[in-house]
Amino acid sequence: MNDREFSERLIKVRSDRSSGAAELARSCLAIIAESCRRDNSDSTAKLLQATFNRSALLAGSRPSMAPVTNLLTIFQEVISTLKDLPPAEARRKCVEVAENITATSVKSTEKTAEHAAALIGENRTVFTLSYSSTVLQAFTLLDKKSIKVIVSESRPLYEGYSMAEKLSQLGIPITLITDAQAGLFVERADMVLVGADTILPDFSVLNKAGTYLAALAAQDNNIPFYVCSEKYKQTGSLDKAPELEAMDPAELNAPDLPLVSIENIYFDVTPAKLITGWINEEGILPVGQH
Amino acid sequence: MNDREFSERLIKVRSDRSSGAAELARSCLAIIAESCRRDNSDSTAKLLQATFNRSALLAGSRPSMAPVTNLLTIFQEVISTLKDLPPAEARRKCVEVAENITATSVKSTEKTAEHAAALIGENRTVFTLSYSSTVLQAFTLLDKKSIKVIVSESRPLYEGYSMAEKLSQLGIPITLITDAQAGLFVERADMVLVGADTILPDFSVLNKAGTYLAALAAQDNNIPFYVCSEKYKQTGSLDKAPELEAMDPAELNAPDLPLVSIENIYFDVTPAKLITGWINEEGILPVGQH
Repeated sequence: MNDREFSERLIKVRSDRSSGAAELARSCLAIIAESCRRDNSDSTAKLLQATFNRSALLAGSRPSMAPVTNLLTIFQEVISTLKDLPPAEARRKCVEVAENITATSVKSTEKTAEHAAALIGENRTVFTLSYSSTVLQAFTLLDKKSIKVIVSESRPLYEGYSMAEKLSQLGIPITLITDAQAGLFVERADMVLVGADTILPDFSVLNKAGTYLAALAAQDNNIPFYVCSEKYKQTGSLDKAPELEAMDPAELNAPDLPLVSIENIYFDVTPAKLITGWINEEGILPVGQH
Repeated sequence: MNDREFSERLIKVRSDRSSGAAELARSCLAIIAESCRRDNSDSTAKLLQATFNRSALLAGSRPSMAPVTNLLTIFQEVISTLKDLPPAEARRKCVEVAENITATSVKSTEKTAEHAAALIGENRTVFTLSYSSTVLQAFTLLDKKSIKVIVSESRPLYEGYSMAEKLSQLGIPITLITDAQAGLFVERADMVLVGADTILPDFSVLNKAGTYLAALAAQDNNIPFYVCSEKYKQTGSLDKAPELEAMDPAELNAPDLPLVSIENIYFDVTPAKLITGWINEEGILPVGQH
């Protein structure tokens, strides 16, 4: 994979609006695995240096999505132990490490989805928003006939439509609403269940903009609010506020008016006090008082 | 105005998505005034009966907007005292009554806007949503250079764009956001200021969907939340829940998918506990504890 090819892949990751954070982290591992597979360095030091540089670029590509950073950091830590191997073996090992991390993360998602499905149970109406592959996987495990899902569209690029489409394919009845109607529909649900892009050290949750509003509505109506997210989505860094990625204002497709500046911040932070529990691969961790 | 013409005007009122509730109530009074002006009944009884029937149809045309009902009910009450006048004079009086009620409501809006402007003062950032003619009028009274407004787009038909356009024409700098970003931007404002379609007897407020979410975010961030609305927008009826008008699901422009039903409820109710004060033509009435 030459530099131009790698740059193209990196730009795709940066501009990806449709994948969840876990999916995107796995895409990054697939890119780095392919990069190693096609590497033709004549020394292990050169291979590792190039792989380090590329994995660092991928790790920093989505600052609001902790799993992208976390899984690539694990990758870097493991491959740093390979420096004494001959190049061919180091190359093979790098690919294996990336694949193993991916496999472990897939297993974490499966276990998390199982715990979420057990919590949801039967005859429930679940409110969700945007698109989360982990939440979607939980629904695949349930009796489709006994579940209803309310999903908000998630402006500006309507990831809620993808969620609705995939739930529809599973045979689950869906109510689709605008984001502004969340206050009207959270109270019609038995619970709110969302994914996460990042879990912060204090268990507050960075997720698609609108999540915080749904959590406020859930609290005001005594509806439990659950976050469904693998443990590798937690960031350990307390030393700086999370970066909330801002995207191209043109995505709103709003009229161009003098004196009007358009903001397109993709993520908000839901404080831990509004979160009933964090569903992860180990079970359900109670979080806030709510 | 024959029946076909009246029906067309009535349909226009029912499908109007861009006017505020006060504006629409005045449009209804203009329709009924024109209907009286062009009436050619040969008796006062016939004139009043026809006018009653038409004003009743207008009064019931927008169940989420109390001023439409309220101003037309006042009109009906006043014209019921005209039955002993000769037809030509009764006709002239009916028109005069409609015009007087309109003039009074315009004056109420002016006074309300003055109180709102005095409250806002200078060097403030105000968060608002959708389109309110009363809120807009308050901004016309302020020093445009010292005010900033954050406005959310208000899906599905983006009345926030109209608000942004009019504020832009006034020379006020605007930040335009998606409805889902309200939680991120309410905390950057000094206050939230919204209009109302109906004030309920307990001072809770029926307004464009998304208002309740902005109020929750305001409370969570200790930002004052004001409603700016003339007194004739209050409904006295306690005996039934307010009707929240649902509009055509096609307005969302969402994909047509099996098992997916689209909801398009235009209004939500913000409970009084979340409202700092009600600004009306008499001043500012403290409402909730917040």
